Amino acid sequence: MAQPLPEYAIIVAGGSGTRMQHDVPKQFIPVAGKPILMHTIERFYNYNPTIRLIVVLPKEQLTTWRELCKEYSFTLFHMTVPGGTTRFGSVKNGLDAVMGDGLIAVHDGVRPFVETEIIKAAFEAAANYGSGVVAISPKDSIRELTSDGSKAVPRTNYKLVQTPQVFKAGIIRKAYEQPEQANFTDDASVVESVGETITLVEGSYRNIKITTPEDLVLAEAFAKE
Amino acid sequence: MAQPLPEYAIIVAGGSGTRMQHDVPKQFIPVAGKPILMHTIERFYNYNPTIRLIVVLPKEQLTTWRELCKEYSFTLFHMTVPGGTTRFGSVKNGLDAVMGDGLIAVHDGVRPFVETEIIKAAFEAAANYGSGVVAISPKDSIRELTSDGSKAVPRTNYKLVQTPQVFKAGIIRKAYEQPEQANFTDDASVVESVGETITLVEGSYRNIKITTPEDLVLAEAFAKE
Repeated sequence: MAQPLPEYAIIVAGGSGTRMQHDVPKQFIPVAGKPILMHTIERFYNYNPTIRLIVVLPKEQLTTWRELCKEYSFTLFHMTVPGGTTRFGSVKNGLDAVMGDGLIAVHDGVRPFVETEIIKAAFEAAANYGSGVVAISPKDSIRELTSDGSKAVPRTNYKLVQTPQVFKAGIIRKAYEQPEQANFTDDASVVESVGETITLVEGSYRNIKITTPEDLVLAEAFAKE
Repeated sequence: MAQPLPEYAIIVAGGSGTRMQHDVPKQFIPVAGKPILMHTIERFYNYNPTIRLIVVLPKEQLTTWRELCKEYSFTLFHMTVPGGTTRFGSVKNGLDAVMGDGLIAVHDGVRPFVETEIIKAAFEAAANYGSGVVAISPKDSIRELTSDGSKAVPRTNYKLVQTPQVFKAGIIRKAYEQPEQANFTDDASVVESVGETITLVEGSYRNIKITTPEDLVLAEAFAKE
């Protein structure tokens, strides 16, 4: 039997807290007694206790993060890597820390409620098809902006993309060798632009990205359940 | 000076509770001590105490609703109208209860957190341009499903539609005279299909539609704030 491929997760946490109207970077805001980023890291360890974790943080936050880990006695092993000026740059720095073959998940540091089953499904899709990108169906009607206004488009034709987004190491490495483009809003769009096919995996409405103050209210409520 | 146009709101509450995994129709689930639908009605009265309110409910829920209003001493005046078999049919029934000229808002019964300012902006847009449809920018990356998979599309080109959706009475009446089509997921798509232009109004991330159990958690948290 073939050995399973080694699994990595690059947790990208580049937030400054501006949109959150908070003085603490959003990944460090405590939810249910500890910083959001710690919850996120735990989710990946719950999925696979031998996963290799790389946490990408703005350079100026690395010391704060180390102090937080000490303060909260947070001992789950992870590497830290300084972020770039954009998300693309941050993921690239994270990739540089991964040697050799394997499966690499990229995940938002502020998506702390991702379920073990979803992480598992994304890794499985990547093992089988090269990529596993988590996405959900929109609940709302969708309109496309046009040069003279907007028009209704069928919502069943669209998916809202979440993370994790998992890829075979060779595929995501090759994709991140290209120069950054303005339309790269996630890893799937980067990987796709070098001609790779994206396999979607069903996500969940609990797997929220904590971005605005409303999300923080929901996060506290989820964490209390 | 011209008299302001009379204002109506058709509150559509057709839910059965299936997706909510709840034995009570979602519009009747209590949040912060009273049924969601009562919160929604209050929002429109807070905006305009002389608004004419039409609540559309499945026929078999009308008695329950009357009993709930009694039980909660809920006395804000509103008409009730039995719903159709689809949302389109329900809105049509609501429109039949509105006589003469004016501005007509259609709003989801399970969007109880809509802000007064947003209702106001939607009515103003409708008064000035014929329509005012509330929509927000997606936070997530978007992929469009294609015949052979999916592809990234720029999220800045899309809006997620909320309610209220407000129209001049003549415009929405004309639109609802046509037969129902499968791609009618909201009133904007119905009105647009008869050649009318849709004016978008910026919504808010608090204006959630309570659809899944996660939304109920958020609703309770919002209501407690």
